[in-house]
Amino acid sequence: MEQHLRVLTLGVRDVERSRGFYVDGLGWPLALHVPGEVAFVQIGHGLLLSLWAIEQMVAEAGEVSAAAPPLTLAHNVASEAEVAAFLKRAAHAGATLLKPAELREWGGVSGYFADPDGFVWEVAHNPGLRTDADGNVSIGAIEG
Amino acid sequence: MEQHLRVLTLGVRDVERSRGFYVDGLGWPLALHVPGEVAFVQIGHGLLLSLWAIEQMVAEAGEVSAAAPPLTLAHNVASEAEVAAFLKRAAHAGATLLKPAELREWGGVSGYFADPDGFVWEVAHNPGLRTDADGNVSIGAIEG
Repeated sequence: MEQHLRVLTLGVRDVERSRGFYVDGLGWPLALHVPGEVAFVQIGHGLLLSLWAIEQMVAEAGEVSAAAPPLTLAHNVASEAEVAAFLKRAAHAGATLLKPAELREWGGVSGYFADPDGFVWEVAHNPGLRTDADGNVSIGAIEG
Repeated sequence: MEQHLRVLTLGVRDVERSRGFYVDGLGWPLALHVPGEVAFVQIGHGLLLSLWAIEQMVAEAGEVSAAAPPLTLAHNVASEAEVAAFLKRAAHAGATLLKPAELREWGGVSGYFADPDGFVWEVAHNPGLRTDADGNVSIGAIEG
């Protein structure tokens, strides 16, 4: 089957506390850690939980409110062109476009839309994100 | 690898509008639909997006605020006993227990905890949720 959700990002107040909770406390596997900035935990076949410092998240994804809580769901696609095409499809389906496709400092391209209730999806092409046949994800280092 | 996130539930104001957006609009596969109550959409290998009427969700999972937005992440385990054991592990790791393990009308057992930022996880044993080798999920009908 096709994978639509690849990364679920939670905006967290203290990355090290969150990493401690999920990795040390619950015992789930750490995929990548940039201290004080972000920790990625593998939570499913081809699926990462991203624990991202909330200030950095808001700077990229936009403001937080009860209607737009501090999390995003990432639909990953195979090319830059598909990012723009999927954003267009979402808008046609009734989404609110929040950010157009842009080059990101982590080496890929992404844009954002809100679904009818305000839940925020990122549409991303990330050449550094790879999944093997067993569902294990590798993700390239992010420049601090 | 072990699958930790099995269901991501969004509390939505209009189930049919949300189903239309994700299924008709984005073209993603519908796994189960109880009109006006809930729609499940497959979004990954062994992974469902649940679009649940927000009044029903709040009645089971608790109140909504900016700190506890209208969504839950479900970690599914193999037995009722494991639900209680995992809730205990989460509390030991620093989680706030929100609801103890209870029999649910959908035929399984679940309880809830909040992570250090208030994000709500459901720990569930659901005998009606099955994943085949290709990652396709089947989920039993929910009584209305």
